Amino acid sequence: MLTPEYMQQIVDDYLAAINAGDMAAVMALYADDAAVEDPVGTEPKRGDEILQFYTNAFAGGAKVELTGPVRLSAKAAAFPFRAEISRVDGPTMIVDVIDIFEFDSAGKVAKMTAYFGPANITTKEA
Amino acid sequence: MLTPEYMQQIVDDYLAAINAGDMAAVMALYADDAAVEDPVGTEPKRGDEILQFYTNAFAGGAKVELTGPVRLSAKAAAFPFRAEISRVDGPTMIVDVIDIFEFDSAGKVAKMTAYFGPANITTKEA
Repeated sequence: MLTPEYMQQIVDDYLAAINAGDMAAVMALYADDAAVEDPVGTEPKRGDEILQFYTNAFAGGAKVELTGPVRLSAKAAAFPFRAEISRVDGPTMIVDVIDIFEFDSAGKVAKMTAYFGPANITTKEA
Repeated sequence: MLTPEYMQQIVDDYLAAINAGDMAAVMALYADDAAVEDPVGTEPKRGDEILQFYTNAFAGGAKVELTGPVRLSAKAAAFPFRAEISRVDGPTMIVDVIDIFEFDSAGKVAKMTAYFGPANITTKEA
């Protein structure tokens, strides 16, 4: 089941769901016991915390797009992307991120880890 | 010590060392007890296995370059790069990879994980 094509599709679906503001579609990609470590080094979020996290992060709308090929190993996908995150209280934030998806045997994302930091964040005026 | 600038420099030094074919310089970036999981999902290499791995992988020469910004979190760097690996027994391999460096408190790379798979490998005629 975990073919490269399948994992690529999940990444595409994930980014499309964020662009559509469809957080239910984001959640559908995750396993029930998934952990989201975003950014890396912070306490992983689980369950309802994950939905809350996405809802908060993208409350003002966001545009995400791949900036290179999805790296597809046996059970994981790693992908570089750029997020333009609109905020109601300030300029648009642009963040360069690399996400890692680790899949379970059912094809759900069991662990997501997001790599970025202050050095990867810029802003642009609306 | 683990500033974004420092971690960026280590990534730059790593790629420069590979391009120079200087495997001693590669090894100098790793902690004595470092683990190299390349590709992700395989048994991590340690100690002399790491030097052996790099020596074998790049025996025919390689050119590596970043294909996007290095993502710099508190203790880790994630970077997308493309490797052109020359081989004596076949066409040049082009591999799109994302590496993760996890740093120890001394500023050495304690863990490297490389994300790629067959879908990320192409060849070109010499």
